[in-house]
Amino acid sequence: MERVKTGIEGLDQALGGGIPKGNVVLVSGSAGTGKTLLCLSFIYYGATKFKEPGVYVSTDQTEEELRSEASNFGWDLKDLENKKMLKLYHVDVTKEEDLNYLKKLSKMVKEIKAKRIVLDSLTTLTEFLTPFELKKGKLFEVLDTISPVAVSESLLIKNVVMKIIKEIKATGCTSMVTSELPEEGNWLSRDTVSEFLVDGVITLRPFKYARSDVDLLVVKLRYGNHSKDIHKIFITEKGVEVNPAEKGVII
Amino acid sequence: MERVKTGIEGLDQALGGGIPKGNVVLVSGSAGTGKTLLCLSFIYYGATKFKEPGVYVSTDQTEEELRSEASNFGWDLKDLENKKMLKLYHVDVTKEEDLNYLKKLSKMVKEIKAKRIVLDSLTTLTEFLTPFELKKGKLFEVLDTISPVAVSESLLIKNVVMKIIKEIKATGCTSMVTSELPEEGNWLSRDTVSEFLVDGVITLRPFKYARSDVDLLVVKLRYGNHSKDIHKIFITEKGVEVNPAEKGVII
Amino acid sequence: MERVKTGIEGLDQALGGGIPKGNVVLVSGSAGTGKTLLCLSFIYYGATKFKEPGVYVSTDQTEEELRSEASNFGWDLKDLENKKMLKLYHVDVTKEEDLNYLKKLSKMVKEIKAKRIVLDSLTTLTEFLTPFELKKGKLFEVLDTISPVAVSESLLIKNVVMKIIKEIKATGCTSMVTSELPEEGNWLSRDTVSEFLVDGVITLRPFKYARSDVDLLVVKLRYGNHSKDIHKIFITEKGVEVNPAEKGVII
Amino acid sequence: MERVKTGIEGLDQALGGGIPKGNVVLVSGSAGTGKTLLCLSFIYYGATKFKEPGVYVSTDQTEEELRSEASNFGWDLKDLENKKMLKLYHVDVTKEEDLNYLKKLSKMVKEIKAKRIVLDSLTTLTEFLTPFELKKGKLFEVLDTISPVAVSESLLIKNVVMKIIKEIKATGCTSMVTSELPEEGNWLSRDTVSEFLVDGVITLRPFKYARSDVDLLVVKLRYGNHSKDIHKIFITEKGVEVNPAEKGVII
Amino acid sequence: MERVKTGIEGLDQALGGGIPKGNVVLVSGSAGTGKTLLCLSFIYYGATKFKEPGVYVSTDQTEEELRSEASNFGWDLKDLENKKMLKLYHVDVTKEEDLNYLKKLSKMVKEIKAKRIVLDSLTTLTEFLTPFELKKGKLFEVLDTISPVAVSESLLIKNVVMKIIKEIKATGCTSMVTSELPEEGNWLSRDTVSEFLVDGVITLRPFKYARSDVDLLVVKLRYGNHSKDIHKIFITEKGVEVNPAEKGVII
Amino acid sequence: MERVKTGIEGLDQALGGGIPKGNVVLVSGSAGTGKTLLCLSFIYYGATKFKEPGVYVSTDQTEEELRSEASNFGWDLKDLENKKMLKLYHVDVTKEEDLNYLKKLSKMVKEIKAKRIVLDSLTTLTEFLTPFELKKGKLFEVLDTISPVAVSESLLIKNVVMKIIKEIKATGCTSMVTSELPEEGNWLSRDTVSEFLVDGVITLRPFKYARSDVDLLVVKLRYGNHSKDIHKIFITEKGVEVNPAEKGVII
Repeated sequence: MERVKTGIEGLDQALGGGIPKGNVVLVSGSAGTGKTLLCLSFIYYGATKFKEPGVYVSTDQTEEELRSEASNFGWDLKDLENKKMLKLYHVDVTKEEDLNYLKKLSKMVKEIKAKRIVLDSLTTLTEFLTPFELKKGKLFEVLDTISPVAVSESLLIKNVVMKIIKEIKATGCTSMVTSELPEEGNWLSRDTVSEFLVDGVITLRPFKYARSDVDLLVVKLRYGNHSKDIHKIFITEKGVEVNPAEKGVII
Repeated sequence: MERVKTGIEGLDQALGGGIPKGNVVLVSGSAGTGKTLLCLSFIYYGATKFKEPGVYVSTDQTEEELRSEASNFGWDLKDLENKKMLKLYHVDVTKEEDLNYLKKLSKMVKEIKAKRIVLDSLTTLTEFLTPFELKKGKLFEVLDTISPVAVSESLLIKNVVMKIIKEIKATGCTSMVTSELPEEGNWLSRDTVSEFLVDGVITLRPFKYARSDVDLLVVKLRYGNHSKDIHKIFITEKGVEVNPAEKGVII
Repeated sequence: MERVKTGIEGLDQALGGGIPKGNVVLVSGSAGTGKTLLCLSFIYYGATKFKEPGVYVSTDQTEEELRSEASNFGWDLKDLENKKMLKLYHVDVTKEEDLNYLKKLSKMVKEIKAKRIVLDSLTTLTEFLTPFELKKGKLFEVLDTISPVAVSESLLIKNVVMKIIKEIKATGCTSMVTSELPEEGNWLSRDTVSEFLVDGVITLRPFKYARSDVDLLVVKLRYGNHSKDIHKIFITEKGVEVNPAEKGVII
Repeated sequence: MERVKTGIEGLDQALGGGIPKGNVVLVSGSAGTGKTLLCLSFIYYGATKFKEPGVYVSTDQTEEELRSEASNFGWDLKDLENKKMLKLYHVDVTKEEDLNYLKKLSKMVKEIKAKRIVLDSLTTLTEFLTPFELKKGKLFEVLDTISPVAVSESLLIKNVVMKIIKEIKATGCTSMVTSELPEEGNWLSRDTVSEFLVDGVITLRPFKYARSDVDLLVVKLRYGNHSKDIHKIFITEKGVEVNPAEKGVII
Repeated sequence: MERVKTGIEGLDQALGGGIPKGNVVLVSGSAGTGKTLLCLSFIYYGATKFKEPGVYVSTDQTEEELRSEASNFGWDLKDLENKKMLKLYHVDVTKEEDLNYLKKLSKMVKEIKAKRIVLDSLTTLTEFLTPFELKKGKLFEVLDTISPVAVSESLLIKNVVMKIIKEIKATGCTSMVTSELPEEGNWLSRDTVSEFLVDGVITLRPFKYARSDVDLLVVKLRYGNHSKDIHKIFITEKGVEVNPAEKGVII
Repeated sequence: MERVKTGIEGLDQALGGGIPKGNVVLVSGSAGTGKTLLCLSFIYYGATKFKEPGVYVSTDQTEEELRSEASNFGWDLKDLENKKMLKLYHVDVTKEEDLNYLKKLSKMVKEIKAKRIVLDSLTTLTEFLTPFELKKGKLFEVLDTISPVAVSESLLIKNVVMKIIKEIKATGCTSMVTSELPEEGNWLSRDTVSEFLVDGVITLRPFKYARSDVDLLVVKLRYGNHSKDIHKIFITEKGVEVNPAEKGVII
């Protein structure tokens, strides 16, 4: 299966060459582990190194804040936007007009012929918007055939996660979605179900005995081999760097 | 009792010769431990090595994605489908028409005279479809005699698990069903009840101190002896391999 | 108090000579630890070694499956059934006619003058049938005087457990009932109350650092002394064996 | 404050001479740690060594079963009952007539001029009978002024515990009540509130690394000093024995 | 800020000289760690050593029981009551008349010109009385503007805690309130919110590996410095003693 | 991005020069770890060292109590208030008039041209005021389009947190908000969502094996580099001090 390079050298090596084309990869981690920067690199390098346009959907930062974050590394997002290589889209989950964000996303993808999508974060999208989707009859057809009261909030969120993943896969883009994790825990996403629905999972965990280290691990990758080693990830003035596998165990 | 070989040599050894014929075995594991590939091998080797037709029911991957995954190992699923040795069936839990998946499965079994079934995953089937089954009066007769409000969601899921296992046993096929697990936990299935209802349980667990290792253990097997050792499972370019028991303790 | 031998030598030693006559002993353990085989031995040896007829009630296996399991050890259950030394009874918790399983059990006990009963498993009987018992007004008289909505599901299950134990004690038989446990936990039954209501408790736990070992412990035994040592339990081609106490500490 | 000896020498030493007169002491422990036998000794020795009549209220064992348990140690309860030194009272929580068990208990206390009471177990009394007390308007006057729906089951149980302790203190007797505990846990009673309402707490815990040992600890004792050491408790053919403090630390 | 001495020498040292005047300090601990005796000393020494009258509000012990507890140390509470230096007030949470305990407390404070207050325990006051306060419209004005059903029991308890602390601060007295804790846990009060609302927190914890030791720690103290060392607390025939800091680290 | 110095030297170093201008930083910690004093220093030094006016919003302490706390370090808040360099605002969550605290805050910011804001604590503001905001229709417009009953309390609190952070960002001020934490836990705020919505997170944790030590860690900081080392924080008579990084690892 064709691989789509993230452009972060060590990560592409960990992924066995990149993300299998058209797949959805979950990036999970606790606060401050670098999820946003990893995803932003995927979109930025896509546009600059590989000439693949991308859409970055953000719930917790405005377009301006994303541009500012990128400028720390000398990246000029505005320029990419002007060249139709990038769309930044801040979904304001407090505004009714943004309930149809999936439609808008789909439109943007067509507009710039995007090959890459980031949804940052899946957690905010599902936890905040699920009740509204329910109300407006925007959920699955089967879900509409039963009374909402018979379904738990947890089940609804799982359904919405499945719907989102299905729709972004339908665009044909290669995608990253983020999920928030506790510092320690036994699941790989906050909703405890995304990790089974996506094609791949990358976790970012603070190393327990030295908070300054963050461990990157490719836990799962369908349709291709990948490293199962733990890689150190760190941030330099040039952006995210991922160490190559310390041992040679790639299968 | 007659044994049905999975075709994975080390696993058949761990199973004391294979799965007792007509039994249902649960394959449990966290994301990325190889549940799907193990089950796919069971069906693929069944059709190619032992001339036993099989049905693979998948909730999280489409038929095309399964074929793509298999092609990584040089397996041509399409060819097997053409020869009536294999049926792939993607249950789309968001579509009402797929609510009667058990009937469709039963029809497919008859169509190709299947001897093997995989349900991947039992978790998605039960968590997503349970409310609809309830609504449509498709549950057990006894359950219909009481008001649904008096029954908890957890109890409903347990009833649906029991129903599914009962119906696939009724086909006479030897079967594998998968369940999602947290990275660590005290039960052997996500619903915490399947492990007691099935005839056998195989767990796949990442080895705690070296994520690149996955441990396979046959925790339970009715109607026959089996290894109680921990076996390493890994993926090569030829498919899943399971190491033979390191110690000779087979009872 | 007179002791009823289980017929498993090491277990009878652990029990200080056997189960005090007429008592109900709980056998608790996680999946694959041998609960069913231990209970089946109690009934089989009862009928063959001690000429005591027995009734085996099973929720998760059919009569035919139990016979098959027994035949692995060269035990001919059918023959015992023909000689009125054994009744196998599969309670199908999905069928309304089996709601009155306690009445049927009582009839079977009289029919073959049974001295031993096994209920395998108490967990399935209570978790699946409790709502129906409530609906049909089959619960305790006091429970009928209040509105069902005021009682939690958990409390209902506890009431049903108490009712079952009371009714099997009323038969005068010596009995074993099984309960499902997580791999690790702080209670001795799934419902967290049976261990206080029964006369004795035997736990089966996988030894943490070597899954192939299962530890048997007699945690509690009213009306008589017993071993408080941990005994290894294992399965040979002849059936369950329980090691004698390694240390001599019997009180 | 005057001390009431339990008659178990090591325990009286641990209690700094006995239970302060008129106090209520909680005996907490998991299944099989000897709660019932400890309490039975308190009543038996009271009647035989100290000529103090006592009432033993049991929810999980019948009068006949208690007599049988006692006979293992050569204790003749029937004889004590005939001499009006003992009342055994089995509260059948499945029978409506036993809802007023506190009234009956109070009557028995007067009948034999009892000085000692045991309630075994407080857990069964509160968990099974609370809904009925609510229904019948038998709870506190203040509780009757609000709608029951506004009060959680947990709060109700706490209120009933407080009511029971208050009523047995009103008899003037020195009392023991039992509570069920998990094998490990952070509270000293199942309801998590009794330990704060009673005057004293004795815990019985299996020693973690050698199940055959049970540790007795006097965790709390109002109105008097007591040992804070861990004492081994074991059962001999003569009854319960409690080892004297290994170290001399009594304050 | 002026310090109010507790009169327990080691504790006053730990508090950096005493409790800042007018502050509310939470005393948290599991059963049997000495909360009541610590608080009683605060009131007794206040009246005897510093000539400051005090009110002791108790939910779990009657006035007579408190006097008896004090007499163990040779303290004559009755005498202090006669001299208007002390008020003991048993709030019977089962009696409707005691719902307005805060008003009564306020009256008592004025009556004897109290400078010190103890509420023992805050847990019982809030858990038992919250539903009644709600019913009677005695809660905050803002809370009355919404329907009670929209507020969880946990939130209500937090509101009542805030109300109580506010009202006792309004008296101008220096106060101690007690909260019940599990043996181990991650919060400093049972309601998990008091520790943030009060001015100071003293915890009493059994030392894990030697139950006979209890550790006292001043976790928090607004408006003044304090020891952050762990101090041993023990009970002698003269009352509570707190060891001076073993190390000299006071900041 | 321009940095706003806190004025605490070690902390500014840990922050890589200060808080990026206009950002919201979460200060999380258990009771007694110094959250309030850290935030107060941020406002005090802002006004005195950098001539930036600030607003301090407090829920748990009155204006007078804050002034008293500051005076311990020789800080004269009243003088700053007189000079229009500081506004103290005690939100009394029991008073209806304080429901519109965000409007009042916004007015104060304009009044003194504030550059800095502290909300202490976010937990009290959200947990106590959320139901009232819901009732009064003061929540997001989208939330008003659905029935409140369909939304869990937890989801509501998350929405309110998002609203608060959005509104204080809209003022353009650089801000600190506090959140209460258990002694140990896996999230970085009590509501488990703030840490993902804010721009930065500083945690204050008692060092496990020596309570007298508190560890400060900058877990997250958007738009700029920062130390990832653990810094010791302590209180002297001059105020909060934060040790410089022990190792030189700043990225």
